Formats: sequence, C-alpha cells, structure tokens
Amino acid sequence: MSGRLAVIGLGPGDPRYLTAEAADALAEAQALYGYGPYLDRMPARAGQSRHPSDNREETARAGEALRHAAQGGRVAVVSGGDPGVFAMAAAICEQIETGPDAWRALDVVVVPGITAMLAVAARIGAPLGHDFCALSLSDNLKPWPLIERRLDAAAEAGFVIALYNPVSHARPWQFGNAVERLRRHLPATTPVVFGRAVGRRDERVDITTLSAADDTPAGAAPVDMATLVIVGTRETRVIARPGRQPLVYTPRAATEVSA
Amino acid sequence: MSGRLAVIGLGPGDPRYLTAEAADALAEAQALYGYGPYLDRMPARAGQSRHPSDNREETARAGEALRHAAQGGRVAVVSGGDPGVFAMAAAICEQIETGPDAWRALDVVVVPGITAMLAVAARIGAPLGHDFCALSLSDNLKPWPLIERRLDAAAEAGFVIALYNPVSHARPWQFGNAVERLRRHLPATTPVVFGRAVGRRDERVDITTLSAADDTPAGAAPVDMATLVIVGTRETRVIARPGRQPLVYTPRAATEVSA
Repeated sequence: MSGRLAVIGLGPGDPRYLTAEAADALAEAQALYGYGPYLDRMPARAGQSRHPSDNREETARAGEALRHAAQGGRVAVVSGGDPGVFAMAAAICEQIETGPDAWRALDVVVVPGITAMLAVAARIGAPLGHDFCALSLSDNLKPWPLIERRLDAAAEAGFVIALYNPVSHARPWQFGNAVERLRRHLPATTPVVFGRAVGRRDERVDITTLSAADDTPAGAAPVDMATLVIVGTRETRVIARPGRQPLVYTPRAATEVSA
Repeated sequence: MSGRLAVIGLGPGDPRYLTAEAADALAEAQALYGYGPYLDRMPARAGQSRHPSDNREETARAGEALRHAAQGGRVAVVSGGDPGVFAMAAAICEQIETGPDAWRALDVVVVPGITAMLAVAARIGAPLGHDFCALSLSDNLKPWPLIERRLDAAAEAGFVIALYNPVSHARPWQFGNAVERLRRHLPATTPVVFGRAVGRRDERVDITTLSAADDTPAGAAPVDMATLVIVGTRETRVIARPGRQPLVYTPRAATEVSA
C-alpha cells in the first residue's frame, strides 16, 4: 500500500486566505505535521493525529512525515504561506532525493498558498506590479557575500525586491547591512513597505523610504521575524489619499535603467 | 456615498484555487468587470451585473470600474492568478493616481490569489525553493534590451527565473531569444519547467533542459500564451521516480556562484 504526502500552504495566517484545495487536503489528512503554532490554529478533527515540531526542525519534520506516509497513511505537512517559497516543499524534496526508495514511490502533492509577499503587496496596492524577485536574507544556508551579490544584481537591474526572513534573534545585523547595500544602487526616496503579521490580528503595514528603512521608530521595531519587506524600484510610486492609507505601486511600463 | 473597488485574484483557473476571501468578495460585488472568459467561469448571481472586456483592454477596464465605483457601487475587477503580479492591480493604481480626486477617496481592496508560478511550482515539486525572480517577457511596455539585462542579472546571480508572458501571436521570437541569452550564463543541463493551463482540464507540465527549451516537439508547441516557464539555477535538481513524474526542486542551501 502506497502512502500519500500532501504539503499544504496555509497562506499568511488567517483562514480566509486558505484555498478550497488546501481546506480539502487538510480535511482528508490522517496525520498533520508542522510548526506547533500553525497546527494550533486548525480545528481538531476526529481521527486526525497531530505532530508539532519547532520552527527550525524542517529537515527532521520532513523525514518524520515521509516515514509516516511510507507506512501507508494520508499525511499532511502544513506550511505557512506557500510551501514552495522559503518553506517546507524544498526540505521534503531534499529528503525524498536522498532517502529510501520507498519515499520516491510516494504520491506527493504540493498545495499552493498565498505567500507573504503577495499578501503584503495586496494590502498596499501593487508594489510587485512589475518584474520582481524574492530573496531570503537568512545566511544560515548560504554565504552572506552571495546575498550581497543578489541584492546588487536585483537593484541594478530594476527588480522590485521582496525580502523574506529579514532578521532573527540570531541574525540581528543582516537587514541593516542589506539596506546599506541597496542604497548604493537606489535613490534615498525609493519606497519601502514593511508588512508585519499580515492577515493576523496584530497586522501592521508601514511605508517608508530606503533612507529611513533601518531606523527604529520610537516604541516600535518595524522589522522582526514576522516581517516581509518590499523594496521598490526607481519607478515605484506612492499615491497619497485623503483620509486613507497611501497606495504603493510599480507601474507596468518601464524604461531603460541607467547603468 | 463612497464606493468600493475590490480587485480579486482568481488563481490559475479552477475554483479550487480560490481563497475564502476571494469567494466572499465575489459574492458581495454588485458589478463584475474583467476579461470575458474569466467572467464566464463564474456562476451567475441575481442582482450582479457583468462587464466583460478584451484581454488587452486593461487600462480602459480599470477606468470603467473606477467610474462605476465612484458612483457608489460595490464593484469588483477580477484578475487571473494574483492581481498584483503582471495583472490588474497596477493598471488600477495607475488610473487612480492620474484620475479625478473621487477615485483617491474610494475604498480600494486587493484580494490576493495564487499566481501562476506558485501553481506550476507546486505541480512539479519546489523549483522556487531558493531565491527567485518573476520576469515578464512582454516587450509591449518595456524595451527588449531591459529584459535582456534582467535575464543576464538574474541568471548570473543565481536566481531561479519564472518567465511570464513568454510568447504571443504578436511576439513570436522573444522566448527563443531569452533562452539563447540564458545559455550564456547557465549550463545546457539546467532544468526548465513548462506549465501550461495549470488547474484547467488541458493542464500540461513538462520538464526539459535549457539546451532543448526552444525545441518544438513533434505535435506540440510547448510554449504559448497560457504557459509559465520556470528556469532553474546551477543547483536545481531533478529527482527520477519510478512510475511517477520526476520532482524538480531547488535546494534551500546555496554556495557561492562563480563569477
């Protein structure tokens, strides 16, 4: 009997971001694996076991879920946002490639979800309205000079830049360093959007500029582990609206970027 | 009375990709604007008017929807995929910025959706598992040399590349040109994924390599207007699976890319 492993994207946090496909896949699972707080958000179901793990145990979680599925069960691994964007799907593929033959015989399904940059962008207008990139600032799995090289390349070529994992307790300086790096290529007035905990009760979306992006305003740290940062291009616009939050967007048309 | 404009992402085509938020926003709208075939997919609702337009009339559609909303209605503009990714949200922001004051007083809500690259990636594993970019190959609104520059920058810096709008009847040569350009930077064996009409009945996902990406196999044109192309990096892997489609993924860890 061959098991099934579903890797399910929950979106940014609120059930209203869940797709119908993800809701069905959650309901069908006999066992749920995932980061504890994600599992806690889901209603208990009779006959469905839960296997919480810590946020940093992705490789171990992938292995446990695959072993379980290989025994014939319908197993689901839940992932915040989209499983394919800095989340569980790659960790599971890594384990499948190097694991026992039985893991490559499994029925593996990835269920996409709303990744953080799409949720933050939607809250503020259309900052990703033109060519863009998604870059993790975590140097746990890649060398910092490679991240700097990608920041340079993306800013010089005129991509909007969505920064995932801007800081953590163990990585306090990376975001400030990235902002300094981007200032070499982009004007001080370039719009920057901070989206924190979008789709949750403590949601907060702030607009600033590249020159002020590493300031910490009084009483609030704008960037933390739950923050997604979008850095615009030379063409990104901010529309003031009386009595409403400004809109930030990047026009669909672009001209040649000066070298 | 102030109107409301919702810009709603439908995802790649099948209702199972719709989020709960998008389904609610569709149900609340008094008027739906959008590309005709998208509107045709939605069940008719009593009291809800429909205003189809052609695929290339985004600016005119945005203006009509804004005028309607400014009269006080609950208006929705539907968009395939995510409205913020090469879709309607930027077109609407452009009109809001340059239009009458009343348009900047409207309640504007963007409802995110599953964009094509997430749906295609999910079908094949985790090809976007590391840093990636999204680039439109349409040179209707930007000069081709700028697209070439972005292809160079993204490939050199080791981003996975999702190509939107790879070809159209009016743009037959751009995709082949882009493939040739990418071959300057990436090995011939670099995995390339074609996802066509994902989430629809005629869905087709193919894996090839950069050396063969511009070949037309006998009997089938792999790239058309409904195709999303993902070009891997030097690190992207293909996992063979007996009796199943291979998985394609980009590992979470990366090493320094040689210059």
